[in-house]
This record gives sequence, C-alpha cells and structure tokens, in this order.
Amino acid sequence: MKMFGFFRSGTSHRTRIILNLKQINYDFQPISLMKNEHKLASFKELNPQGFVPVLEVNDQKLIQSPAIIEWLEEQYPMPALLPQEEPARAKVRAIAALIGCDIHPINNKRILEYLRHTLKLDDQQVETWCQHWINEGFNALEQLLEQDQVRGDFCVGDAPTIADAYLIPQVDSSKRFNVDMTKYPNIQRVYDACMQLPAFQAAAPKNQPDAV
Amino acid sequence: MKMFGFFRSGTSHRTRIILNLKQINYDFQPISLMKNEHKLASFKELNPQGFVPVLEVNDQKLIQSPAIIEWLEEQYPMPALLPQEEPARAKVRAIAALIGCDIHPINNKRILEYLRHTLKLDDQQVETWCQHWINEGFNALEQLLEQDQVRGDFCVGDAPTIADAYLIPQVDSSKRFNVDMTKYPNIQRVYDACMQLPAFQAAAPKNQPDAV
Repeated sequence: MKMFGFFRSGTSHRTRIILNLKQINYDFQPISLMKNEHKLASFKELNPQGFVPVLEVNDQKLIQSPAIIEWLEEQYPMPALLPQEEPARAKVRAIAALIGCDIHPINNKRILEYLRHTLKLDDQQVETWCQHWINEGFNALEQLLEQDQVRGDFCVGDAPTIADAYLIPQVDSSKRFNVDMTKYPNIQRVYDACMQLPAFQAAAPKNQPDAV
Repeated sequence: MKMFGFFRSGTSHRTRIILNLKQINYDFQPISLMKNEHKLASFKELNPQGFVPVLEVNDQKLIQSPAIIEWLEEQYPMPALLPQEEPARAKVRAIAALIGCDIHPINNKRILEYLRHTLKLDDQQVETWCQHWINEGFNALEQLLEQDQVRGDFCVGDAPTIADAYLIPQVDSSKRFNVDMTKYPNIQRVYDACMQLPAFQAAAPKNQPDAV
C-alpha cells in the first residue's frame, strides 16, 4: 500500500490518523502542494482531480479521503472506527461530513488562492473568510458534542472514531487561522484527548518526512 | 419516517432520489430556505447546523446527507445502491465525495450570500465563481467516467448508485449557473439515463409539494 500525500494537507492528515489507528503499514510518496506537484500531468494520471491523498493498493487507485476511509474501515475492520450501534454510527458519519463537506473544502488551498488572486482579497479578508466558516461549523459541532447524553473522551463515546480523525486536522487548521478555540471547550477537550494517543501524535504534520 | 427538506436544496434532492430508489415511504416537512425557516430556533433544535435535510426516524434525528445516505443503505439494503465489489464500491463513494465535498458546498446558498453581501460581488462575479468550481469538479469527473473500462449507462455500471443521486442535483444546479454542459458528454449521458427513471423524475425539485 502506498499513500501519496502532503504533510500539511488536512485530508492526508485525517487519512494518516486512520491508517495509524488501524496499525496499517504503508509506503509514503510526498506530493508537495507548495511546489504544485499535485498539478503535474504525472500525478493527474493517478487522480484527475489533482488532489491528495491517493491510496494505491495493488491495481486499485483510491481517491477522495471519505471514500478511502470507508474502504479502510471495510477492509481492515479492527479496531472498528465506526461504532456498530445507532445512533452513534450515524453521528460519527454526520460529524465527519460536517467537517469534511462544510468546513474543510471551503478553506483549502485552491479556494484561498482564488480569493487572493482572482478576487484580490487581502490577508485579513482571507483570514476572516476562514474564521467565518470554521466558526459556523464549530458552533454546530460544539452543540452536537454538548448534547451527547453520555459524553466520552472523544467525539462519540470513549474510543476514537472516524469523527476524531476529521476533527484533529480541522482544529490544527483553525489555529493557523487564529480561530478563538476558547469558545469550543468540548472540541478542545476532544482534541486534547486525541493528542494523548501515539496514533494521533505520529500523524501530526510536523512529524512527517516531508514536513518543512 | 419524516424528512425535513426543501425542494431546491441539492442535499434534499439527493436524499429524495435515494429514498425513491429504495421505495421508502416518508412524510415530508418543508423548510423554506427562501423564508429562512432553517435559521429558526425551532429548526436548530433538530439540527444545530440549521441545514436540510434532517431525517427523523423514531427518536433518532439524522443530519448530514452523506451520513443519512449511508444509514439508508445499511438499514434498507435492497436495492443496493453501493456495489458489493471493488473497485466499483470505492469509486461510487469517491464520486459522491467529489461532488458532495468539492463542488456542492462551495456554491450553496450561504456561500453565495457571503460573496454577495460581505464581499460585495456582483451577479456576474458570483456566476463566474460557481462556474469555476463546477468546471473544476466536472472536468475531473468527466475523466473518471471516460476512464471506465466497462462503461455502463450510469456513473458506475449499469444500475443507478449513490453516485448518480449526487450527480443529478449537481447537474441541475450547473444549468442554473449556465455551465456549458456540452464539455461533459459522459456526465450528460448519465444524466439523461437517470432522468428516464421514475425515481429520479419524482425526486426532481419541480415535482415537490413545496416547489415555487
């Protein structure tokens, strides 16, 4: 198994967390988003979208981290990162989608480049943009975490799930955009719990071989 | 089962397609995004994010269409809308995520309102924004459909899947933003095949009780 990724890509980061939690060995091929290696024709042959991560397994080329993560959960079921029972199972996927659809893609590199270069926004306007969408999502997520009848250490329950793998890179990104995390004590509590675990520590951007 | 939705919401539309393909009966509660009913406190009690759709089943309130759709697939497995075999299974989920993460959320109502009211973009700039992100996604999707070794009538194979449920609302939205669909013959071909089916016809926005 080979993963094409980038140390600071949130979608690569969430996939690394899943791989680590499941203790799956893989080769790593860095694709530098800073050097625009994801836009090269050779990489677009792997993924026409030109996005990391790509997971290459035998002849199958897996793209899109939500699809990769469901595939990993099905092919490597232990430890389970989706609870078997409802409503926990749907809640894990809902939190993943809240972050994966409604926060992350609105603040990623290509969007910020469009805001800067096509719409000519300045740095402050770009930061305000990012903070706005992160706060919208985190406000809702904070309530979802607060509402939990039996609150565990993690997003859903007492063991890490796919939801936590989505959350941690998003919190890291929020800090880069100077989001005030004191508004989100439940999110911060889950973040702190996750970062106690070696699987999350080893997946951190600064601990990757391509970290700059 | 009760669905809270809106006729022109793409996420409500994709969920209706799944419900129809699986022939699941449900009550419908319209939440008008035009009248900002999704921002009312009473609705945010159902979903702190204030988004449609919400699926209420017994005591469980399901939010986020990607999570709702996986739940429906697990609870109502027939007809299967996710192929059992790989690589088709992962490809369906990848196409769903390509649309559900990287096209739809960047062009939805809240983003366009921010572009218009906060960034003061004019109608032409807003349309250019939408066309840009739809074309980026559709260019990649067109190649993914073209690459299929055995091309069927639908996104993946010869029967409708979750991928088609994501695609059809996105094509409808693209037409509203005047995207040139002649660049995407494979996408248009799949669209035409889907729209032959009663489940897709009945899910169309214009055929909903709250259509304006």
